[in-house]
Amino acid sequence: MPTIMVDGPPIDVERKRRLVKKLTDVAVEVYGIPHIVVLIRENPPENVGVEGQLIADRKKPV
Amino acid sequence: MPTIMVDGPPIDVERKRRLVKKLTDVAVEVYGIPHIVVLIRENPPENVGVEGQLIADRKKPV
Amino acid sequence: MPTIMVDGPPIDVERKRRLVKKLTDVAVEVYGIPHIVVLIRENPPENVGVEGQLIADRKKPV
Amino acid sequence: MPTIMVDGPPIDVERKRRLVKKLTDVAVEVYGIPHIVVLIRENPPENVGVEGQLIADRKKPV
Amino acid sequence: MPTIMVDGPPIDVERKRRLVKKLTDVAVEVYGIPHIVVLIRENPPENVGVEGQLIADRKKPV
Amino acid sequence: MPTIMVDGPPIDVERKRRLVKKLTDVAVEVYGIPHIVVLIRENPPENVGVEGQLIADRKKPV
Repeated sequence: MPTIMVDGPPIDVERKRRLVKKLTDVAVEVYGIPHIVVLIRENPPENVGVEGQLIADRKKPV
Repeated sequence: MPTIMVDGPPIDVERKRRLVKKLTDVAVEVYGIPHIVVLIRENPPENVGVEGQLIADRKKPV
Repeated sequence: MPTIMVDGPPIDVERKRRLVKKLTDVAVEVYGIPHIVVLIRENPPENVGVEGQLIADRKKPV
Repeated sequence: MPTIMVDGPPIDVERKRRLVKKLTDVAVEVYGIPHIVVLIRENPPENVGVEGQLIADRKKPV
Repeated sequence: MPTIMVDGPPIDVERKRRLVKKLTDVAVEVYGIPHIVVLIRENPPENVGVEGQLIADRKKPV
Repeated sequence: MPTIMVDGPPIDVERKRRLVKKLTDVAVEVYGIPHIVVLIRENPPENVGVEGQLIADRKKPV
């Protein structure tokens, strides 16, 4: 029962649908197990820091 | 200092209270340690995928 | 498909069996969903810090 | 900087390589961000419970 | 590429900025690796339980 | 009761001690709460992928 947690920026439902479908396809293929759970976590840019700086304070996404 | 993270659908505060109380009782009994932290994460149905499909797109909860 | 992750000290398989059974019973009762996944993470005492000190350096477990 | 955590059974390094490559391709495509981190967690069957039962106690993987 | 996830109460953006900066400095110093990602998770007091009780039900923060 | 989870490469116990002490100091200062738990997760280089490639397959750490 592999579980995939994805932390990324907010995305719309159509992208979530695609993300879940494709990540699941990969996991099913690699693990050979059909029961895959995917949890999408949407992080506002002020809650993520990269190399010491908030995403919200950066010029471009990373 | 065992820590329990629970990812589930949104629930009301009375259920959270019961969830925290009961999960803690179990952990105290099994680990023999009284200091238990429980974190409840509420995931909207469009952020969870089961077997490649968003919960939001399913007919019944899983 | 609620998922429960438990971070605690190493335990034997009999305790794991009991932990999984009882945590699942609680989650099924509170969420009303039968499909519960539990992941047990065993953390050596040198990998856990409480109030700034490694568990491995403490006199008694917390 | 999306981060993907995958909890599954132990797998060999060739499967890990494929898993990282393919999950990253999906995330890059959906998020449009090239900097993806993947963490693979390998869980022994006695540390995972599905519907109240340890994987180690089941007849077939789930 | 160390990743730090912090679960705490909600805080304002100035504290997030300081948290990310300082946690990153520590990780860079200890690991000797400059590429650190920090994820801040803000948990409402009704989603956190300590010793069996919701933070929301306590008199003072813990 | 803030909780900090750190995913990084394996490190020796002296570095873990320093990591726990310093991360806790930062969290106490920012949150104003003394009860901080730190969990250190050590990831072998074949279990971490950066931009689609296993750390184990890279020339230098990232």
